[in-house]
Amino acid sequence: MNIKIVVVGKIKEKIYQQRILEYLKWIDQDVKTDLIILKESSGKKLDQKLKPYLHSNNYTICVSEDGKQLSSKQFSEYIFERTQDLTFFIGGPDGHPQVIEKESKSILSLSNLTLPHEMALLVLAEQIFRAISIKKGSKYHR
Amino acid sequence: MNIKIVVVGKIKEKIYQQRILEYLKWIDQDVKTDLIILKESSGKKLDQKLKPYLHSNNYTICVSEDGKQLSSKQFSEYIFERTQDLTFFIGGPDGHPQVIEKESKSILSLSNLTLPHEMALLVLAEQIFRAISIKKGSKYHR
Repeated sequence: MNIKIVVVGKIKEKIYQQRILEYLKWIDQDVKTDLIILKESSGKKLDQKLKPYLHSNNYTICVSEDGKQLSSKQFSEYIFERTQDLTFFIGGPDGHPQVIEKESKSILSLSNLTLPHEMALLVLAEQIFRAISIKKGSKYHR
Repeated sequence: MNIKIVVVGKIKEKIYQQRILEYLKWIDQDVKTDLIILKESSGKKLDQKLKPYLHSNNYTICVSEDGKQLSSKQFSEYIFERTQDLTFFIGGPDGHPQVIEKESKSILSLSNLTLPHEMALLVLAEQIFRAISIKKGSKYHR
């Protein structure tokens, strides 16, 4: 399994950036992971850029407050029961372009709270790392 | 209103620490906020240290996966409808000492996911700042 994380909008805060890249490096030791950062742009231009990621053979997951909430254990099962590669989408400071919620196969929520998109990416990266730890039975998840 | 945040266990990661302190500085401009970090120690010793914070006149809130989840708007109302000062408790790497869940007036959940306690503190700090922004009607929360 490979994982793609597609983020709309730059990760401006260096502090988050540094920690996110560290989690992704850890994840990458077990599961190949790519972070794709798309520049925010006006509606149609952005939709065009998103299309190849939405219409791929990957299982597409929109990360949004409105989605289904899982526990960390359920999230681990959710990831590892797939036979396809995964693509997660995280919206920008102004939320998700409609096309993502509409065309993703699944909508997942990290929290009922509105998180800054950088923090959502940080939480997602940590949870993917945790999901692998749960699957492997390592000490990280207690 | 004043806010106390009582955390069990050191914030070891400098990156989180830096960002948490920044949010607290922003919050402090509107609401006086103290961060109290208690060293992890064996059961009874820690319970003794927690007691004065649990048995104060403050409205005590245990932050735990098992609690009630609110949206950011609801969290803002939840904070500002209190007439008392608030104390939030965040557990350590091994979770909450039982005494906190038992004796707090309310249990609040940030997410169904298990977050590292440093990340829980980061999310809580950002949400308190967001709650103030919502109350003030500032642009931060869109």
